[in-house]
Amino acid sequence: MIPAGGSGTRLWPLSRAAHPKFLHSLTGSPASMLQATVARLAPLASTDRTFIVTGSAHSAAVARQLPEIPVENLLIEPSPRDSCAAIGLAAAVISRRDPTAIMGSFAADHLVRDEAKFVETIRLARAGAEMGLLMTVGIAPTHPETGYGYVQCGDPYPPVTKVRQFHEKPNLEYAERYLADGSFLWNASMFLWRVDVFLGELQRQQPELYEGLSTVADAWGTQTQDEVLGEVWPQLKRISVDHAVMQGAADAGMVGTVRGEFGWTDVGDFDALGTVLEDPACDVADANRNIVVKDAGAQVVLHDTRDAVVVAHGGRLVAALGLQDVVVVDTPEAVLVCDRKRAQEIKLIVDDLKRRGEDGYL
Amino acid sequence: MIPAGGSGTRLWPLSRAAHPKFLHSLTGSPASMLQATVARLAPLASTDRTFIVTGSAHSAAVARQLPEIPVENLLIEPSPRDSCAAIGLAAAVISRRDPTAIMGSFAADHLVRDEAKFVETIRLARAGAEMGLLMTVGIAPTHPETGYGYVQCGDPYPPVTKVRQFHEKPNLEYAERYLADGSFLWNASMFLWRVDVFLGELQRQQPELYEGLSTVADAWGTQTQDEVLGEVWPQLKRISVDHAVMQGAADAGMVGTVRGEFGWTDVGDFDALGTVLEDPACDVADANRNIVVKDAGAQVVLHDTRDAVVVAHGGRLVAALGLQDVVVVDTPEAVLVCDRKRAQEIKLIVDDLKRRGEDGYL
Repeated sequence: MIPAGGSGTRLWPLSRAAHPKFLHSLTGSPASMLQATVARLAPLASTDRTFIVTGSAHSAAVARQLPEIPVENLLIEPSPRDSCAAIGLAAAVISRRDPTAIMGSFAADHLVRDEAKFVETIRLARAGAEMGLLMTVGIAPTHPETGYGYVQCGDPYPPVTKVRQFHEKPNLEYAERYLADGSFLWNASMFLWRVDVFLGELQRQQPELYEGLSTVADAWGTQTQDEVLGEVWPQLKRISVDHAVMQGAADAGMVGTVRGEFGWTDVGDFDALGTVLEDPACDVADANRNIVVKDAGAQVVLHDTRDAVVVAHGGRLVAALGLQDVVVVDTPEAVLVCDRKRAQEIKLIVDDLKRRGEDGYL
Repeated sequence: MIPAGGSGTRLWPLSRAAHPKFLHSLTGSPASMLQATVARLAPLASTDRTFIVTGSAHSAAVARQLPEIPVENLLIEPSPRDSCAAIGLAAAVISRRDPTAIMGSFAADHLVRDEAKFVETIRLARAGAEMGLLMTVGIAPTHPETGYGYVQCGDPYPPVTKVRQFHEKPNLEYAERYLADGSFLWNASMFLWRVDVFLGELQRQQPELYEGLSTVADAWGTQTQDEVLGEVWPQLKRISVDHAVMQGAADAGMVGTVRGEFGWTDVGDFDALGTVLEDPACDVADANRNIVVKDAGAQVVLHDTRDAVVVAHGGRLVAALGLQDVVVVDTPEAVLVCDRKRAQEIKLIVDDLKRRGEDGYL
């Protein structure tokens, strides 16, 4: 199951509300991130057992990008109710077809470098799920990242490891401690579980949300679907699956993890995109370590420019002269120029546009 | 007479072959540079005595921007033959109407800050022209500029000064000597003369060019105009008026100059544009000394950005974050990002596009 939502404001103006990150190819490959995610999961689940949960605004684009997924596997949320409702809906719908199915949840807008190792890791996590654990895949940290939450490992539970606690995004001091400690992994929001185990924990910890999602799932695919959705969905609690279920399940000793070392990134900002694509395997960087991603019709001319990240998605010419460590993003509606070291702060621009009421650019 | 030609590659992509600098407002005012030039000359010549020489590609745009200029005063060159042919054509046509008229030539793409002082200076130059000199207006240099030619002053010839010699663009060492010397002025290609004196010197120094232009001027406004133009114009020598006439006339003691101190600039590149608009009188700079010029429909959002020059002529949003001394130029066809200190080198980009055969962007 692939939750395909979120607009990714730190990738503005490439990723916008109307054109979210997962519908794009960030790497210049023909496949969008969503399509790449489906392809990555193909060794683990056939297309008739692959589900997408997305918002109504993007359902048409998702349907066209993924013609191989059966329409009944495209679960359209009428409005965003955070990750617990999205994942819970999928779990409830899947359980109506196969009550003890193993379900995994993988974001539509992450990149994985080593796909074989990814599959191997997920198969290991599946073993934990079959034993009745709510499994998360933790990413072995490579630096003291303050942009992710962390999973703290507990006792071994072969072939997996129990999770002691979930931690929110830390400040730098804590991030450095986590890295030094060695028992902390990045929480990449990848989950695997038996749907009956997950729904049991949801019922125990979030009974109202469980009831609502059960009502929706019972009506799913019937003539009353839209009516029930319209009535129940807006009442569902907005809460993340981490807060709603995972922390409480960890306290009950029911959460496990496996260590992921497959070159994962959520491509959170343009600096991160540049770092991902610097990999020689990507064959994107030029002799001056410039990373250029362009769509058909776009042209890029760089003179005496180094370590730049240039995204040319406006179908136009982008030219740069005498610059270093700069991000240039061209789209039909907006152009962004940014110091690469400040790429995480692009939200400032988005916030400013919101304040001005310029929602058309968001 | 206003020669309106040249595409200004150092202002690419704002100024392009199809949309040259003089058709734009660089300062964000409603008037284009061409319109501003006509307005600046209004105290010196009525519109029926104002002439524009331009290429056929821009004749329609020029005609629409200047509805007050009689159509017979718009002199259209079939092809560019450098400044001597353009200015000589105007001189020959004007002499057919008024053989001893005083004619001045002022480029369509320069800016003047103090217009009253400009008019006063031109009136002084006119006194020299009435005495039979080919007058040039020299600009009092403010720094050792290597981008302009220089005029070396000779003996006083009240109320003007004789010119000893014209000098090509110097290297920095010579530019510094010229500045220290005090008798050198920038050659801003502003000329005033009696048309009979100029045509006499043209006949003496460039007899073939004189004959060709005379043939064209005799046919001008008659039924044979196009036929004569088509036959004669392509044969005319391509040469600048400085080389063709002015240096030789200076050797003969026939050239004078007046010192111009009216805040002149040819806005040669985006750095120069920023410097012009930093003037508090322009009221364009923000608290961080950013210069923003935008057209209708464009938006500019700058965060933590200083000393930038932003030209938003693409009707889109231009956003910048964490940058200093950067030039950002957005147009419908191309976007340029450049270190402001390298603004003079934008020609490198244009040259590269030419090499690639991407003439559509030029």
